[in-house]
Amino acid sequence: MNHSMGVLIIYTGILLYPRFSEYELSVLLSVLKQGQKPTVYIGLNDQVVKGESGLPCVPEATVNELDIRQLDSLVLPGVDDFAHLVDHPDLTGFLRKFRKKDIVIGAISSAPYLLSMSGLLDGRKYTTGLTADQRKFLGTFNGAHYLDLPVVIDGNLVTAKGPAFIDFAIKFGEMLNLNFDKRWYIKE
Amino acid sequence: MNHSMGVLIIYTGILLYPRFSEYELSVLLSVLKQGQKPTVYIGLNDQVVKGESGLPCVPEATVNELDIRQLDSLVLPGVDDFAHLVDHPDLTGFLRKFRKKDIVIGAISSAPYLLSMSGLLDGRKYTTGLTADQRKFLGTFNGAHYLDLPVVIDGNLVTAKGPAFIDFAIKFGEMLNLNFDKRWYIKE
Repeated sequence: MNHSMGVLIIYTGILLYPRFSEYELSVLLSVLKQGQKPTVYIGLNDQVVKGESGLPCVPEATVNELDIRQLDSLVLPGVDDFAHLVDHPDLTGFLRKFRKKDIVIGAISSAPYLLSMSGLLDGRKYTTGLTADQRKFLGTFNGAHYLDLPVVIDGNLVTAKGPAFIDFAIKFGEMLNLNFDKRWYIKE
Repeated sequence: MNHSMGVLIIYTGILLYPRFSEYELSVLLSVLKQGQKPTVYIGLNDQVVKGESGLPCVPEATVNELDIRQLDSLVLPGVDDFAHLVDHPDLTGFLRKFRKKDIVIGAISSAPYLLSMSGLLDGRKYTTGLTADQRKFLGTFNGAHYLDLPVVIDGNLVTAKGPAFIDFAIKFGEMLNLNFDKRWYIKE
């Protein structure tokens, strides 16, 4: 991240935690690139992070060091096995900083759970790839606010089921008013 | 990569060159993961590689050090600007090793050019996201073998246009006889 001519650059933060789903995330990354939106890849620490398909990635910042005033938006990819993230103190501490800050947040597949454990789903309608049994077991979801739809937008929050990763990306880009060509992602 | 009990593990090699397209690649990575196929991420060297959307990735091997007997398949993601790869000596040298070896190869978007510059498209029908003008300018494509289709399979070679990245991934997995659930990638 850079300061240029004293102007604070505003980024979309992209969380990279171990076992993040590469495919659920990467169309969104491309939308951000098309829209010339600056991005910062944020790790739980500064170690290499392997996605669920094994792609080794390098965070550019960490949840503990990042100045959240530099973010106007945040993306949480899904995780196939997120046991290691349940009540993760650094992740929860980071996400709680956004409870009273009006930024665009996108969470897909299992990632809405990470929002719910941090209080960011309170009072919001949402969807998730987690089953009813999983949501009940986890104990942090408001069942009445769940919608069985591919993508749900409530205010500045967009949530999606995993297979809706293309729509999720398009909606996120639209919420940031980015200029991009959807045809990159849709076969003629 | 590991040798286990003296058994040689056979991998799908995934090339990571600067500006590779994350979204054109990542559904295929997920198919490989679902199918429990070992993978190795191969760089042109051992430096961190940024994809076209800026995702910083770490190669696990390099084109110069990898023993190609460990590969039964190879993936070439697209690149938005591949000027830096034209006649790249290490990349061309690596790819030429496969001219007489019958492995499954997948190339999407602009990546069929990398095959053509290395002689791997000779006598093969193919598609690509490159335009007729671009193909002519590059001078390594056989115009008569181009097919204007989203995905083309010729023997052990699968090529695709960028927006067909999901079909490309499914076809590649099928060519390796992998067991996977396509519904992960297709919205209901």
